[in-house]
Amino acid sequence: MAHLLSTSCSIKLSSSHRPLSQPFRQCPTKCLTFFTLGTSKSPFKRFVLQGGTQQASCIVRATVAPISQETPTQSRSDSQQNSSEPSKPKRVMVIGGDGYCGWATALHLSNKGYDVAIVDSLIRRLFDQQLGLDSLTPIASIHNRLRCWRSVTGKTIELYIGDICDFEFLSETFKSFEPDAVVHFGEQRSAPYSMIDRNRAVFTQHNNVIGTLNVLFAIKEFRDQCHLVKLGTMGEYGTPNIDIEEGYITITHNGRTDTLPFPKQASSFYHLSKVHDSNNIAFTCKAWGIRATDLNQGVVYGVRTEETEMHEELCNRLDYDGVFGTALNRFCVQAAVGHPLTVYGKGGQTRGYLDIRDTVQCVELAIANPAQPGEFRVFNQFTEQFSVNELASLVTKAGEKLGLDVKTISVPNPRVEAEEHYYNAKHTKLIELGLEPHLLSDSLLDSLLNFAIKFKDRVDTKQIMPSVSWKKIGVKPKTLAA
Amino acid sequence: MAHLLSTSCSIKLSSSHRPLSQPFRQCPTKCLTFFTLGTSKSPFKRFVLQGGTQQASCIVRATVAPISQETPTQSRSDSQQNSSEPSKPKRVMVIGGDGYCGWATALHLSNKGYDVAIVDSLIRRLFDQQLGLDSLTPIASIHNRLRCWRSVTGKTIELYIGDICDFEFLSETFKSFEPDAVVHFGEQRSAPYSMIDRNRAVFTQHNNVIGTLNVLFAIKEFRDQCHLVKLGTMGEYGTPNIDIEEGYITITHNGRTDTLPFPKQASSFYHLSKVHDSNNIAFTCKAWGIRATDLNQGVVYGVRTEETEMHEELCNRLDYDGVFGTALNRFCVQAAVGHPLTVYGKGGQTRGYLDIRDTVQCVELAIANPAQPGEFRVFNQFTEQFSVNELASLVTKAGEKLGLDVKTISVPNPRVEAEEHYYNAKHTKLIELGLEPHLLSDSLLDSLLNFAIKFKDRVDTKQIMPSVSWKKIGVKPKTLAA
Repeated sequence: MAHLLSTSCSIKLSSSHRPLSQPFRQCPTKCLTFFTLGTSKSPFKRFVLQGGTQQASCIVRATVAPISQETPTQSRSDSQQNSSEPSKPKRVMVIGGDGYCGWATALHLSNKGYDVAIVDSLIRRLFDQQLGLDSLTPIASIHNRLRCWRSVTGKTIELYIGDICDFEFLSETFKSFEPDAVVHFGEQRSAPYSMIDRNRAVFTQHNNVIGTLNVLFAIKEFRDQCHLVKLGTMGEYGTPNIDIEEGYITITHNGRTDTLPFPKQASSFYHLSKVHDSNNIAFTCKAWGIRATDLNQGVVYGVRTEETEMHEELCNRLDYDGVFGTALNRFCVQAAVGHPLTVYGKGGQTRGYLDIRDTVQCVELAIANPAQPGEFRVFNQFTEQFSVNELASLVTKAGEKLGLDVKTISVPNPRVEAEEHYYNAKHTKLIELGLEPHLLSDSLLDSLLNFAIKFKDRVDTKQIMPSVSWKKIGVKPKTLAA
Repeated sequence: MAHLLSTSCSIKLSSSHRPLSQPFRQCPTKCLTFFTLGTSKSPFKRFVLQGGTQQASCIVRATVAPISQETPTQSRSDSQQNSSEPSKPKRVMVIGGDGYCGWATALHLSNKGYDVAIVDSLIRRLFDQQLGLDSLTPIASIHNRLRCWRSVTGKTIELYIGDICDFEFLSETFKSFEPDAVVHFGEQRSAPYSMIDRNRAVFTQHNNVIGTLNVLFAIKEFRDQCHLVKLGTMGEYGTPNIDIEEGYITITHNGRTDTLPFPKQASSFYHLSKVHDSNNIAFTCKAWGIRATDLNQGVVYGVRTEETEMHEELCNRLDYDGVFGTALNRFCVQAAVGHPLTVYGKGGQTRGYLDIRDTVQCVELAIANPAQPGEFRVFNQFTEQFSVNELASLVTKAGEKLGLDVKTISVPNPRVEAEEHYYNAKHTKLIELGLEPHLLSDSLLDSLLNFAIKFKDRVDTKQIMPSVSWKKIGVKPKTLAA
């Protein structure tokens, strides 16, 4: 974060005035949440918030709900650090737990009985402010989210606010929380954002690569049996003309055979940062015995999970803009407001997709079945493949059922990518672990479209068209008007 | 550089008192050199040094020697930016031109008639100071080196002193020098250095990746036809159980075929930084039309080139320590001082090697035959393969001829690497361009051993043994005593 803020970045904020169409009902009871502020400049401090009153506190432990029979505990191979406490629930640190996938995952894991801490710098919210963007759905502050979660479920999620690129901060979170698993969503995760200008390209690679290096060093130093569950992306592979395997491919060449990392062809500075991460993690698994699972995730759609539906203040974000919005979510919002669906180029771009309910399921499966010490395990985390044209067609049909007149336009592709290509990616390993996919269905599309219609007065149509060009990225900080 | 200096790094300087056994003769005449100081804090300034007197100067152009018939000029495909001046020599920016390979390359290119500028932060010299290390050979300051070069040859090499991670500085060097080719040696290039502690791991990846990103952005913005010649390393490939191709491999899988980037398995944070660079560069070739050659260089040995032999003040550095020294150079120095040759582990580690005279030849071949716009070209830059045991055997025999009693010891391998493995790497593309290899011979070993003997009083034997462990790297800044 410091990196971004230290660059001279000129931003015009948008002056959108979108109604908060669904004002939050207050959480019924006052509740406790915990958070931590740490920077390399200030000593590590921890505060307890109670009904909005801030009090200094030296040591705070999460208060966990009574442990049910279903509470996940450390597996035999995973319990070296706490072998005397076999029934203690697994402690999972969710880095980036205030974001789209991170928030849904943190709640899901807490609901399943894990002890959860969120580590987040909240910079995703700053990006929205700087670029004049906003979630379709109104989202509560992280503090109110966690108060509400405790109020609704009785479960506490700890909160550490800080930047994992600040190793002193990260060290303190490890020493304080003592995670058994770290789920690492804490990266700048938008390809278009990484292609806005040089500053943001450099920020994305620095932030993602150094943050992940710090996590690896923290695991080695403080919790060497901790399982790293790292979010990668299917975009690391690009679109090769052969089947995409899960992380590795066996190659026979000139009469000899080896199983090697699957060749990567990433197509943005963001996607490249994930490739860099994967390579760094693979090395530390080999050199230090780190246990890691790299989840090469497809494009996530949807907004509701079992947990976020428990209270409107737990609602997840839904991005529809050209920078952070993902394809299907964008199309549904476009259909809801009568904007033509924006297909980039020919629309033959095919990718793996998954429902956000499967994101949280996959992460839990990875945690419940950890990698072995020294193992760098790669799962392709998606459930179905679609081309952009297929998505547009599905949304058009679903919209028509709801009485919407859905049009599609082809806009010049702002990216550099093949628009017609072979694509067949394997995704069996998570199924083998027990994933029960929520396949894209009429009912899901109905639900997502109705959700978009519900909040359509909050849509800023100026954010819909793509504004970032892969070819036009320049060296000067870009001033983005809404 | 700023990154490293901003970390809290506690270093004990060594108190070595090594004799300067060969004091420099002064260059016979006063001479002009040019250098530039730039930081993001200070406005870009340029100075002319004349006989040691500093004077402010607004615009200075390199004074080039009369252009001979052999002067390399821009090729037809390469001359879009200067099409009206067909006989103008190619302008080559050598980033990292004060280092081991960079210095030899800068002189070689200048000698061949290219207009050369060196861009260097001089941080390699700081590393020596911080770690208490020193070159076997006494090396002059960069300013004296360039004065001497001009005195001896009449040719001027421009000098820009600054950090390419500072984009404002790099921009000014591009706008001022207007390179037709950039040779990029400007990276932290030691695997052990990158494995000393977390600070240096992070520094290595940040410095190398962000520096290279900046070079790519500078080319796109200011010199879009400029050919990037980037130094990579054979270490990017690791030691797969199949033949290593030059950058790409054609894979047939499940009945389909594609030519994809050769899978990489780097084994230090340094080697990984080079993999990250390669991936970033490949992307910009595709997205922006950058023309780039990635030189995956083997282990370089030797010290003399035609140009560095012209005057002792032009002498290149020769590292023999456990951090920056490369295998064959280290063995020759060890033999010269009667230290047993330090074979790490079983000694079956096999790599590609090349004489530094071939490094400079290869770089010139790449510049003279540039990549096409949008092409990401990969050459494996080495001439022969040896195992560590084979090198030890060769040095032992050569030493015996000189009356040296050479012993070999196996020391615990500080690295994580296979010690017995298949290794067969292709290296035909540079041969096809005209490389005439200097193969490792008795006469070269004689020369190198005699060189080491000549300077053996400067050897600090405490620097010989490996001091950096891949497995023991920690998060605290490491204090290194000499």
